[in-house]
Amino acid sequence: MLHFENDYNEGVHPELLEALITTNEENLPGYGADAYTKRAVDKIRQAIACPQAQITFLTGGTQTNQVIINSLLKSYEGVLAAETGHISTHEAGAIEFSGHKVLTLPHEHGKLRAADVEAYLKDFYADGNHEHMVFPGMVYISHPTEYGALYSKAELTELSQLCDRYEIPLFMDGARLGYALGVASSDVTLADIAELCHVFYIGGTKLGALAGEAIVFTRHNEPKHFIPIVKQHGALVAKGRLFGVQFDRFFTDNLYQKIGQQAIAYAEELKAILHEKGYRFFYESPTNQQFVIVENKQLETLAEKVVYSFWEKYDDNHTVIRLATSWSTTDQDLADLRDSL
Amino acid sequence: MLHFENDYNEGVHPELLEALITTNEENLPGYGADAYTKRAVDKIRQAIACPQAQITFLTGGTQTNQVIINSLLKSYEGVLAAETGHISTHEAGAIEFSGHKVLTLPHEHGKLRAADVEAYLKDFYADGNHEHMVFPGMVYISHPTEYGALYSKAELTELSQLCDRYEIPLFMDGARLGYALGVASSDVTLADIAELCHVFYIGGTKLGALAGEAIVFTRHNEPKHFIPIVKQHGALVAKGRLFGVQFDRFFTDNLYQKIGQQAIAYAEELKAILHEKGYRFFYESPTNQQFVIVENKQLETLAEKVVYSFWEKYDDNHTVIRLATSWSTTDQDLADLRDSL
Amino acid sequence: MLHFENDYNEGVHPELLEALITTNEENLPGYGADAYTKRAVDKIRQAIACPQAQITFLTGGTQTNQVIINSLLKSYEGVLAAETGHISTHEAGAIEFSGHKVLTLPHEHGKLRAADVEAYLKDFYADGNHEHMVFPGMVYISHPTEYGALYSKAELTELSQLCDRYEIPLFMDGARLGYALGVASSDVTLADIAELCHVFYIGGTKLGALAGEAIVFTRHNEPKHFIPIVKQHGALVAKGRLFGVQFDRFFTDNLYQKIGQQAIAYAEELKAILHEKGYRFFYESPTNQQFVIVENKQLETLAEKVVYSFWEKYDDNHTVIRLATSWSTTDQDLADLRDSL
Amino acid sequence: MLHFENDYNEGVHPELLEALITTNEENLPGYGADAYTKRAVDKIRQAIACPQAQITFLTGGTQTNQVIINSLLKSYEGVLAAETGHISTHEAGAIEFSGHKVLTLPHEHGKLRAADVEAYLKDFYADGNHEHMVFPGMVYISHPTEYGALYSKAELTELSQLCDRYEIPLFMDGARLGYALGVASSDVTLADIAELCHVFYIGGTKLGALAGEAIVFTRHNEPKHFIPIVKQHGALVAKGRLFGVQFDRFFTDNLYQKIGQQAIAYAEELKAILHEKGYRFFYESPTNQQFVIVENKQLETLAEKVVYSFWEKYDDNHTVIRLATSWSTTDQDLADLRDSL
Repeated sequence: MLHFENDYNEGVHPELLEALITTNEENLPGYGADAYTKRAVDKIRQAIACPQAQITFLTGGTQTNQVIINSLLKSYEGVLAAETGHISTHEAGAIEFSGHKVLTLPHEHGKLRAADVEAYLKDFYADGNHEHMVFPGMVYISHPTEYGALYSKAELTELSQLCDRYEIPLFMDGARLGYALGVASSDVTLADIAELCHVFYIGGTKLGALAGEAIVFTRHNEPKHFIPIVKQHGALVAKGRLFGVQFDRFFTDNLYQKIGQQAIAYAEELKAILHEKGYRFFYESPTNQQFVIVENKQLETLAEKVVYSFWEKYDDNHTVIRLATSWSTTDQDLADLRDSL
Repeated sequence: MLHFENDYNEGVHPELLEALITTNEENLPGYGADAYTKRAVDKIRQAIACPQAQITFLTGGTQTNQVIINSLLKSYEGVLAAETGHISTHEAGAIEFSGHKVLTLPHEHGKLRAADVEAYLKDFYADGNHEHMVFPGMVYISHPTEYGALYSKAELTELSQLCDRYEIPLFMDGARLGYALGVASSDVTLADIAELCHVFYIGGTKLGALAGEAIVFTRHNEPKHFIPIVKQHGALVAKGRLFGVQFDRFFTDNLYQKIGQQAIAYAEELKAILHEKGYRFFYESPTNQQFVIVENKQLETLAEKVVYSFWEKYDDNHTVIRLATSWSTTDQDLADLRDSL
Repeated sequence: MLHFENDYNEGVHPELLEALITTNEENLPGYGADAYTKRAVDKIRQAIACPQAQITFLTGGTQTNQVIINSLLKSYEGVLAAETGHISTHEAGAIEFSGHKVLTLPHEHGKLRAADVEAYLKDFYADGNHEHMVFPGMVYISHPTEYGALYSKAELTELSQLCDRYEIPLFMDGARLGYALGVASSDVTLADIAELCHVFYIGGTKLGALAGEAIVFTRHNEPKHFIPIVKQHGALVAKGRLFGVQFDRFFTDNLYQKIGQQAIAYAEELKAILHEKGYRFFYESPTNQQFVIVENKQLETLAEKVVYSFWEKYDDNHTVIRLATSWSTTDQDLADLRDSL
Repeated sequence: MLHFENDYNEGVHPELLEALITTNEENLPGYGADAYTKRAVDKIRQAIACPQAQITFLTGGTQTNQVIINSLLKSYEGVLAAETGHISTHEAGAIEFSGHKVLTLPHEHGKLRAADVEAYLKDFYADGNHEHMVFPGMVYISHPTEYGALYSKAELTELSQLCDRYEIPLFMDGARLGYALGVASSDVTLADIAELCHVFYIGGTKLGALAGEAIVFTRHNEPKHFIPIVKQHGALVAKGRLFGVQFDRFFTDNLYQKIGQQAIAYAEELKAILHEKGYRFFYESPTNQQFVIVENKQLETLAEKVVYSFWEKYDDNHTVIRLATSWSTTDQDLADLRDSL
């Protein structure tokens, strides 16, 4: 069976595994106080050209979103996000569970437009009665979006300046950030992100870590006593080395970016095959996730050979499915796919 | 100055005041254990033809919505509501503060359509992946809606049966319920509401109480240990007599319904005057709130004579304003308005 | 039947009732924006000699405690309180419900000793591992305490300076503050409280209001956007006039203090009667609540004539009961009590 | 340097690492739907002799405690625990953060006495006024306790029957459960625990997993829709295989118990050495953690050779320290320790 359903169905990238094996018997302090975590922090700071960055490692994406949003927002604030944002749709209400409303806006392939955000903020403060409303206290974006789309540097800059003007943080969910960085035509670098976002996270799990996401506060804006806050969310891990060792390796010899580049190269090949085979694209993304429209009756035949993800109903007779490459995709996978379709 | 801005800008209805004065020196136990509260409960049960109803009195509408929704929902559930629902827009995120998402649907003058609710529920359970989504655990409606619109008995029945089918409660916010009951052309009675809604509240504040809303659970479905739950929300009042005495009076000699009828009669006169004076209606509601579209430059002139509520921007040159009658409106108020406009 | 069970079993003080009647038909804006609320704020500022005080009115004590504590504490902070503090024991977990731990300390008739608080704070910061513990972020005291005891000015000053040193607020629960102020031998004035406490509230309900407590932030330390915070807790009342009118009257002609003085005079008489009749005191408080130890078999006989409050089990054969005077106690009540015991 | 400070300062047990390596390239569905997780569940059910057990894997102890407690308790309930319980002291208020009070009781080396629990429950329900108090809704115990102490089967049975009588669950925190099971003189088996506790968890992290704790509901009492609840807490891990593979291995060939037995054998040797060298025990536990009282001036000398944990101040001149063996302790470690002390 060919696996293109997502980017987290294999274990851990061989280089990270090697690092875990090598360091396994070392005695290291817990809760992120180990030397590998410190080294990973230093290397990330360098990679993002942001020496003052405050960096903490958590286990997974929903947890990371919850901790960041809940610790930065005031109780009476909500977070602006695209209707399709992961926090809006697929986190089982984790943001509301921690007390905050997700204020949704329209989107383009998952991207927020600065104009929409600005209109919302303007209207909010224009309304004299806003003391009975949820204050917009943060802007959440994902890069790549849930549809694989990317912001341009100009778009990010516009959002960033808007947030600065309204004195609210711009938060980038980077669960798949490596795949964004691997796109040659994208003009957004890690350094740009660190400059433009007030907080973001560098996704590990979907880039080949067993688990692990690196939260980066870029403007001395990490909430005071962040460790107790993390602990209180049940998110502090005893063997913090798990993240330290993996991210130390991710940011040695550019591994994180290389993984992204390789998966994007395979994604280009995937798109070529899909075109070749006459597939109709719902959205041909620049990153590792591709969305095609398939006739419902064709789905079963496809499922005999390829594992894909159901994405959404297109119409009564068609379905949007997702095919994704990842850090674990191989030449053989693509060759097999070409033969199977 | 003429006051038509809302229905809570005077103190307390003279009959309720009289009852408060008369009973003031009686020694009564606190926290709702007094005889007036018991009598109010009995009279409401009779008025709604629901002898098994479980009834509790709280102070205000947002508090009541929060306590009901938070105590009935499971942690992983959200509440379906119109985009314009009070809980969606004007409660400062009180529902999210207590941990639950408001799942919004389109509306017609604030009314939910059963077909939209059903489509949402069907889609939710059709999606195999819904374990990462917020479960729809309740349907919230307001009657009258925030735009003064009313459900018909047929519409309520359809929503009620849908909720029964999906085993989720139908909750009616009755902050202005008395004004709905006062509409002669409405075919929805208090008994219908008690039969069709799993929980609702009878609004006191906007009908002439100093403060006070009566929560009614109609199907033996009051959450166990509801008093500690209310206490925990900071919503238990020491001098519960305040609500007991007022609601006892509301439901003596049909006062609650009479107040509504009188305000509706004045609302009909208000509509006639507005038509007479050539006002353009945004929504001509059957209840006590009327929405008209006014040119922005005309607003200031109007404001010299009449206090109204800003409702929303209509376009760059026009604004929607609200004019409302209430339990305290008089013949003189209407006569003066006719003269002023 | 004679009523000495508590201080909230009658309705509203006649002078406050008069003020409510007089102002009832005035058209006033809602949510605390009315002129009476403004006047009440001004008068309280004068009475407490704190012109910069930020004052907000809520409905009841548990709600007030929850809103103050939850809005001032950071998420990772708890509140230090006596084991017998109202927030520790009788608020159904309202503080924990809003996310914060009550960190309990030993007490003397409900009073915290500065030495105990200091020891706790010192130990906490001495322990290098405190990042896994709840940070002590506030000191909660009640004055009078739940046992009717009072702090001296020296004791309050010591607590206040300690809190300043540790940069955490000192919060005084003044549910029965009027009864403290009515004690001639107490050297603590309202102005002292405003100077020494970072936040406190002036209890209305137990001093004769229908409902109403006045929160006072004394050091420009009201949380930003406090109204939305209050709304979000379900604690914002539409007819804010209810509080404005009553507190305007409380602080006109010294009524608030006079009510306290009168109840304390009756309490002195109550103590004299109890001594006279040979009652054994559990705690003879300086304020309006008295605690006596009664043989269990005597309780029923007593209950035939006097309503008292069960306080706690003393031993297998004895019970501690509470008798209280209040704003509504009369000469006749005391005379009848003398005759009945 | 010799490491005896805790049981989580090395990475992962070699056998578990081997299993992770072997399975690394397999394509497996996420979120715990993989075959290894299913196998781990089956093997645990067999090991605990509880075929109906409902089992879920989370990342760490505080998270596990929070999810279990918060999902089983009603909003108005708190959890009874020893004053020294991990949830009472070292989880940064994670339980209160999720809305629940920890109701503390005295303890004996961290153990709750059934008599104390029963007295609390009796008193609570005897007090007519308990509607203003936090309801005791669960009993939390740890086995071994934070001091390494163990319950006997008789003690567990007494607590279990008490909980059944009051219809509240008995929850055992088994963060170090393997070390309890490794004690030959203990009469408590895994099957006993599954029979007597309504819910417990089998700790992985401190027994050699990279991360991972297995929650076990023993009486068909897993909260409905537990996966969304876990997700909502940010506790659902994408690569659930991490836990599945490790626990599958833990429960193959009795590895979990063997690890415990070996660490206990080393703990016996550790105790012998400490006695031999004249150390004074604060508590000589039957499990892997030992607590000795050391003169403060001796601490620094000791610290040159051995890493230990500071536990608590004993008196002005003495300190209690913890020394622990673990799954990674070796013969050499003990030999070196004997030579160093």
